[in-house]
Amino acid sequence: MPRLRLALAQSNPLVGDLAGNAEKIVRAARDAVAQGADILAVGEMALTGYPIEDLARRPSFLAWITEFLPLLAQRLQREGLGDLPIVVGHPDGPHEPRLLGTSNAPTAIAQNCASVLQHGRVVARYAKHHLPNYGVFDEYRTFIPGDELLVLRLKGVDVALIICEDLWRDGGPVGRVLESDAGVLLVINASPFERDKDEVRLPLVTRRAIETDTVVAYVNLVGGQDDLVFDGDSVVVDGQGTILARAPQFVEHLLVVDVDAADATDTELPPNVRRVELAGGGAASEHPLATDIAELPDDREQLWNALVTGTRDYVRKNLFRSVILGLSGGIDSAVCAAIAADAIGAENVYGVSMPSRWSSDHSRSDADDLAERIGLNYSVEPIADLVQPVESQLALDGVAAENLQARIRAIILMGLSNMHGHLVLTTGNKTELSVGYSTIYGDSVGGFAPIKDVPKLLVWELARWRNEHAIARGETPPIPENSIAKPPSAELRPGQVDQDTLPPYEVLDAILEAYVDRELGRDDVIALGFEAETVDFVTRLVDRSEWKRRQGAIGPKISGMAFGRDRRMPITYRPTR
Amino acid sequence: MPRLRLALAQSNPLVGDLAGNAEKIVRAARDAVAQGADILAVGEMALTGYPIEDLARRPSFLAWITEFLPLLAQRLQREGLGDLPIVVGHPDGPHEPRLLGTSNAPTAIAQNCASVLQHGRVVARYAKHHLPNYGVFDEYRTFIPGDELLVLRLKGVDVALIICEDLWRDGGPVGRVLESDAGVLLVINASPFERDKDEVRLPLVTRRAIETDTVVAYVNLVGGQDDLVFDGDSVVVDGQGTILARAPQFVEHLLVVDVDAADATDTELPPNVRRVELAGGGAASEHPLATDIAELPDDREQLWNALVTGTRDYVRKNLFRSVILGLSGGIDSAVCAAIAADAIGAENVYGVSMPSRWSSDHSRSDADDLAERIGLNYSVEPIADLVQPVESQLALDGVAAENLQARIRAIILMGLSNMHGHLVLTTGNKTELSVGYSTIYGDSVGGFAPIKDVPKLLVWELARWRNEHAIARGETPPIPENSIAKPPSAELRPGQVDQDTLPPYEVLDAILEAYVDRELGRDDVIALGFEAETVDFVTRLVDRSEWKRRQGAIGPKISGMAFGRDRRMPITYRPTR
Repeated sequence: MPRLRLALAQSNPLVGDLAGNAEKIVRAARDAVAQGADILAVGEMALTGYPIEDLARRPSFLAWITEFLPLLAQRLQREGLGDLPIVVGHPDGPHEPRLLGTSNAPTAIAQNCASVLQHGRVVARYAKHHLPNYGVFDEYRTFIPGDELLVLRLKGVDVALIICEDLWRDGGPVGRVLESDAGVLLVINASPFERDKDEVRLPLVTRRAIETDTVVAYVNLVGGQDDLVFDGDSVVVDGQGTILARAPQFVEHLLVVDVDAADATDTELPPNVRRVELAGGGAASEHPLATDIAELPDDREQLWNALVTGTRDYVRKNLFRSVILGLSGGIDSAVCAAIAADAIGAENVYGVSMPSRWSSDHSRSDADDLAERIGLNYSVEPIADLVQPVESQLALDGVAAENLQARIRAIILMGLSNMHGHLVLTTGNKTELSVGYSTIYGDSVGGFAPIKDVPKLLVWELARWRNEHAIARGETPPIPENSIAKPPSAELRPGQVDQDTLPPYEVLDAILEAYVDRELGRDDVIALGFEAETVDFVTRLVDRSEWKRRQGAIGPKISGMAFGRDRRMPITYRPTR
Repeated sequence: MPRLRLALAQSNPLVGDLAGNAEKIVRAARDAVAQGADILAVGEMALTGYPIEDLARRPSFLAWITEFLPLLAQRLQREGLGDLPIVVGHPDGPHEPRLLGTSNAPTAIAQNCASVLQHGRVVARYAKHHLPNYGVFDEYRTFIPGDELLVLRLKGVDVALIICEDLWRDGGPVGRVLESDAGVLLVINASPFERDKDEVRLPLVTRRAIETDTVVAYVNLVGGQDDLVFDGDSVVVDGQGTILARAPQFVEHLLVVDVDAADATDTELPPNVRRVELAGGGAASEHPLATDIAELPDDREQLWNALVTGTRDYVRKNLFRSVILGLSGGIDSAVCAAIAADAIGAENVYGVSMPSRWSSDHSRSDADDLAERIGLNYSVEPIADLVQPVESQLALDGVAAENLQARIRAIILMGLSNMHGHLVLTTGNKTELSVGYSTIYGDSVGGFAPIKDVPKLLVWELARWRNEHAIARGETPPIPENSIAKPPSAELRPGQVDQDTLPPYEVLDAILEAYVDRELGRDDVIALGFEAETVDFVTRLVDRSEWKRRQGAIGPKISGMAFGRDRRMPITYRPTR
């Protein structure tokens, strides 16, 4: 069996930053050549970042990429890296629009491609066949599906090349390329993190490897792009289902591995499969590499890392240097502050305690404690003197007066943001967002919402985990015990606690999981054993809060059903079954 | 040639309100029977409203519709309307998910259907073949395409039934159903209003009629659903391209028309076409009807009506009784107030003038004048005493102090909204939204944005039109001349006007039209003849304001490219060519 040395680069691209993203590819190529790799692959759309959304429909953007790719190939050649075949993901176009009806509707003009660069040229190209158009994906909107399959012949091995969703579909291109007796199936991906996704993704890769008796090499992006976080977790599995190599999550990494692959044969190619002979490749594969199999951390650590990565990349990629957030002494703002400090360093985090006349003593002391533990920049801005003039001029009371306090706090945070250039973080959790338990233009303000996809019970769990993690490393636990232990309250009137108006969080989160995450209707949620009255109360709150959610900040998706493009619901509608 | 009396009901459904929507269908059936119609058709998804978005993926919702349809048929029968075949649009399911890959991704489980109710039963069903998945449409996400075509044989005429997008695609079902020698092509639609869409839609209908030598009967929804406004404009065109009937725009209407259609023949049906014989039909078609051909009003009147309809339906369908908005004396708030008064009556409109220390005398006097002209509820809340305490506590200056004024105004409007239950209207126009020329959580606050898709130059044009329209009807022009004539200013510092920081609106709107509406890249916009510096300035503002737009209120789409689901762009990205 011929041996190939594969290099898979999980990189963190920035959408639209061709120069910066290409630089990462060149660096990976240098590394791969230094390690004697025969072929290098980077992730889906690694040249442009992913998802590019409707940028895929901008002809001049596509034309720029068409110009750029040969220049990148030439640069690699000039740097002495031209012998290494490099598989690069990028959009390609403009092509003739897919739909040729009378409609003058905006149609897709691009394909989602993998190009192979070698010897200063683009030597082969594959266009993705299966375009995901569910969940967060709109690829059928923006791309034209490919109809030709590609096999690269390299050092006596046939390497079949596909992109992401192509691997997931039964009866997709996988079967056909493997009729061609490929020895390696190379898949480039932009597969966002979701809790427990590794429990689906790795078994899929393994199943495909065994089904086809092929080495499957899977390379994914890393990093945050708006509400998505790519976790990497690139992996190589052999035809017996053994993991040969696995990259760590959430960090840029070059995974290099030797694989023994079946000899290429000269069986006739199935229809629509093209074979391209690649010259050369590396020479060093006689010296086997050390095994590089990263262990996946435990569930809560993965989640924490996803939140930190999403927050860090939003801040950095949007060129902020610091963040500001309100510290209420409660669990949500404490967890957000800890995430922010882990993401960009406590010295770049500004926390503001904004006590009102209804704030408890502990709201202030717990905030002080948090600031001290984390070592963030801390200030106190009492709001009573700012609330009072508005309240009396407008004669506000009841909910209007409660909301006013939250909105004055928003004005403080936004004012400080405008003065000092901090990004405002909003600290609402998924439970709160689901039922609209927040003040719009009040505690909802901000550009990024670190725990927007974290239900309340999980917020507590992550807080406890983060503290234990600190203790295990001999560090100060960042989150005050009292913030974890005390009953949650918005403190907008004396003695108020969340459970005055909401069901216990154990019940609430379970109903929301059924109604929002699992998309069950009201009747089906009741059938799970919840009280009809509670289900009606909760589901109506969810329905009625859609307008608020639409105006909310984005935040990192960690569940299978995050608010945002994952869940597209009308604002205006009557409750249904 | 046999004569058929067709009845087309353009109805205004509310998403999820099966009972209410069915009531409208029953009323239309009574009317149609009274007028001797042979067949009645209502719009696409008229039973559930459109678009239902991800509600299409809720199994219990689909099961409810499956229960509901036969009950509706039985009710029609009981009311003596059972002889009339009624074509009703609705989602149908749950079906087996379309995608059978390993992926546990959320896939479509519904079809977009037209069912024929007669004699107390569902006697035939057609599932839409072509699923629009561009612009505002996500149908490939939520629906499974149909694969069988349907022809109804009624009184010796074959009536082929298709749905909306099916008509637009060349090589779609139209060709195949007509091989079956159908005499009438009945198309049910949910086709949202866009400026000049009638210049595309009617020619398409006419072309299809002539191409196929068939009567084309086209029925559309009316009314607002979130950001979409359906204009109706249902029409019947004969095989010579002559308009036989046309319904007025934006109002519910039953269009009844006699058509002479080709005799049904017994040619063999093309593959996958099913024919269903319908009994009966009306008896009155010997007495020809008076022609009912509505004239389309001029462009500006259509636009105004779209904005009024969208605003009215958002208010009513969400069960608000009143709206509140800030009146600055400027053109945007004046136009929004006039739209609101036209939509729900001046007595339900609350305007608040909120002068600051920088407000000009005319800002106050023009607001007074507007309130007087329109007759809306008017109050004045000076902001100086509310701004000062925040400004001094936080030591705000520059842009932070300017934004503070806008945010204090937002607090006033939201406070009054919370006290009195008014919906807050936000008054920003498309130009402002494009370049981010507004204060987030300030003048952007509100649940609905009547002129969000109206560029600044068009705001002026519509203001002038509305005044002329009033004069022509002997009414008081609602918009003060001075609000139209004076240079626009945010009045956040002394003597400020928009053109201090923005290019002239003639240039700005033209660049935005190219960059946003026509989706040209920066280079292609410059190639149109604009200065590179200005184009860079404007396009960067557009790119950088995406995060603000994401947090903005929805508003009625009137252009081919409204902000929202029409234009899906990343927040985080570097400017591209």
